[in-house]
Amino acid sequence: MQQALQNMKVIDLTQVLAGPYCTMVLGDLGADVIKVEKYPHGDDSRIMGPYVEEESYSYMMANRNKRGIRLNIKEEAGLGILLDLVKTADVFIENFRPGVTKKLGIDYETLRQLNPGLIYCSISGYGQTGPYSQKGGYDIMAQGLSGLMSMTGEKNGRPVKNGIAIHDIAAGMTAIYSILAAYIHKLSTGEGQYIDLSLVDSGLAWTVWESAAYFGAGEVSRANGSAHRVTAPYQGFPTKNGHILVGAGNQKLWEKFCRDVIEREELIHDPRFLTNSERQANLEELEQVIQDVLIQEDSQHWLTKLDEAGVPSSPIYSYDEALNDPHIRSRDMVIEYDHPLGGRIESLGFPAKMSKTPGQVKRPAPLLGQHTKEVLAELQYSEEKIRALEENKII
Amino acid sequence: MQQALQNMKVIDLTQVLAGPYCTMVLGDLGADVIKVEKYPHGDDSRIMGPYVEEESYSYMMANRNKRGIRLNIKEEAGLGILLDLVKTADVFIENFRPGVTKKLGIDYETLRQLNPGLIYCSISGYGQTGPYSQKGGYDIMAQGLSGLMSMTGEKNGRPVKNGIAIHDIAAGMTAIYSILAAYIHKLSTGEGQYIDLSLVDSGLAWTVWESAAYFGAGEVSRANGSAHRVTAPYQGFPTKNGHILVGAGNQKLWEKFCRDVIEREELIHDPRFLTNSERQANLEELEQVIQDVLIQEDSQHWLTKLDEAGVPSSPIYSYDEALNDPHIRSRDMVIEYDHPLGGRIESLGFPAKMSKTPGQVKRPAPLLGQHTKEVLAELQYSEEKIRALEENKII
Repeated sequence: MQQALQNMKVIDLTQVLAGPYCTMVLGDLGADVIKVEKYPHGDDSRIMGPYVEEESYSYMMANRNKRGIRLNIKEEAGLGILLDLVKTADVFIENFRPGVTKKLGIDYETLRQLNPGLIYCSISGYGQTGPYSQKGGYDIMAQGLSGLMSMTGEKNGRPVKNGIAIHDIAAGMTAIYSILAAYIHKLSTGEGQYIDLSLVDSGLAWTVWESAAYFGAGEVSRANGSAHRVTAPYQGFPTKNGHILVGAGNQKLWEKFCRDVIEREELIHDPRFLTNSERQANLEELEQVIQDVLIQEDSQHWLTKLDEAGVPSSPIYSYDEALNDPHIRSRDMVIEYDHPLGGRIESLGFPAKMSKTPGQVKRPAPLLGQHTKEVLAELQYSEEKIRALEENKII
Repeated sequence: MQQALQNMKVIDLTQVLAGPYCTMVLGDLGADVIKVEKYPHGDDSRIMGPYVEEESYSYMMANRNKRGIRLNIKEEAGLGILLDLVKTADVFIENFRPGVTKKLGIDYETLRQLNPGLIYCSISGYGQTGPYSQKGGYDIMAQGLSGLMSMTGEKNGRPVKNGIAIHDIAAGMTAIYSILAAYIHKLSTGEGQYIDLSLVDSGLAWTVWESAAYFGAGEVSRANGSAHRVTAPYQGFPTKNGHILVGAGNQKLWEKFCRDVIEREELIHDPRFLTNSERQANLEELEQVIQDVLIQEDSQHWLTKLDEAGVPSSPIYSYDEALNDPHIRSRDMVIEYDHPLGGRIESLGFPAKMSKTPGQVKRPAPLLGQHTKEVLAELQYSEEKIRALEENKII
């Protein structure tokens, strides 16, 4: 079956999560991704557990559909190999701290001379410019700086982080779409370009409703447990055996919820809860009234009644419950494939179900240096030369 | 200046956040996005405050760079207009509940007959298939079902939601890249295709590290305040006047932190904190020891010392602090442009800084029906016909 990016070649010098997530998705969609890992130990995520036969599962989950080579680019011979590769590529992506590529001789100005059509994407914590550009920036720093942490947690509680490395993912996702847009430009003009993106900016760009509240009314969004910013009741509640979500997002749903779910029709006429504004203003009382009812029965009891009443609801799953839910399984969000060390391994599936060019697993994540010889052979390096590079600790 | 998607035409029947975020980014990158709003009141987000001159700021923030028409597609004449538009488009995107497009006569099978090159993207809460496909699914339901909420919050506390509508954004971001990939396929083959994606799947696909822990070791990630899953200390701490983040992500940084920041060199040799494993195992004690020191001085005092020592750190900003930070401003993450009712308004900037085809604001979000006549004129509708459509409450 055809894949959308089957003519795209990517040279990937990124590691850990943001960049590798980007290039994994490009690989899922058909790109030839050559992951260049540093000599001697490779991607830093290789030391993140858990392990199977000494291979990192964390590495495996973020690096399928790539070929891997190991390369010492601090040596001239290694740098030369990288430059040879760049000449053959559409996309180059790196996540060194700003300024490092210049020292290594692989900055955009240098590489565009070799390949004017190159799309060169830099991912960093804070971006290539601005007063913090030289700071070391990781996901949680970005969560702190963007305001995201301050909006997450219990009301008046400590700031807590988002359950996943959300700014890493944000940068990876932003890299995907900007690289694809640049590739579309290249397809019609032959021109490459430089893309500078940061963890901080990428996550901040997602605060759409929060920016509306601030720019429009000077209102600062703050953590509020699981409650919605403007609609009530629209949040999690404890039950006898867990937590569920109730989304009575408008007046009609609120009335259905009172009448058909918790069977407290009098609440509809309760002056504290007459309209959404009043329910918001008296949120703590509202929470207590609803909680007192829901706590008396199991989650499943309420989820069934909510479904019957047509009130949006959901279990609040632990992560293992999520991955084993029949709906999520039916959507192929858990897939299996073979790994040379891991055997039959499980992995997350493809979120976009594309009818003509679906995501595919063509290969598992590479072992360190697994494709070095194969890739060098494609560059017409002789076996003898490859042997010498090995002996000189270049590959 | 050229834009990457300047030849792409998008017909957008989505509303609220996931779809509009996608089409806003396509518009930022140059696509001609025609937002088709339902008759008579338009996008549901138009009733979300705050307001400026009765125009919703929330709507404005998610809909720049689109032209807007109002259309009653439940009437044959209105449907006809939509079908005429579809014939001219590259992309069609909708977020009705699964099955509704078929009833409306605008499902993929129907539209592909008119335009075989059409890329048709459906966004829904749970996807077009599977046991929950017919349920109403909003962002928070997806956060509950995917396990994301259970991984967010205080250790052993209530699940809390992510600060932003993260699954809505996830679906929007996934829509962007899958539409661009499908467009790349179309550019080389002329073929369109169908894309089915859901809020749940799109966010779940981001749980990379968590899936590694689960698939690799059966370990279920759970909420843990602001603390890192495997590295310590790597989290938020209270200071005299706020909270800061400290990311002593490896042994060297931990030792620097003890020696140069909190000046407690003896902690390096404390048997409870010798290695990362021991620091993780004794996390509560570690937190207490560090907190007791940090609480004695202001955030700025510690941030300066952390910077000097080269230990990654960050303030934990409230959202207004974030938007007014000099670095974030220097990255043009807050931009200004004119809106016919709002005057000079502020908005979030473009996270990807593309050198050749940068994001641009060419127009503010449309007023309801602002471009109806302009778009119909492009379809060669006469003024007379347009007047009749108005009288018949079609537009």
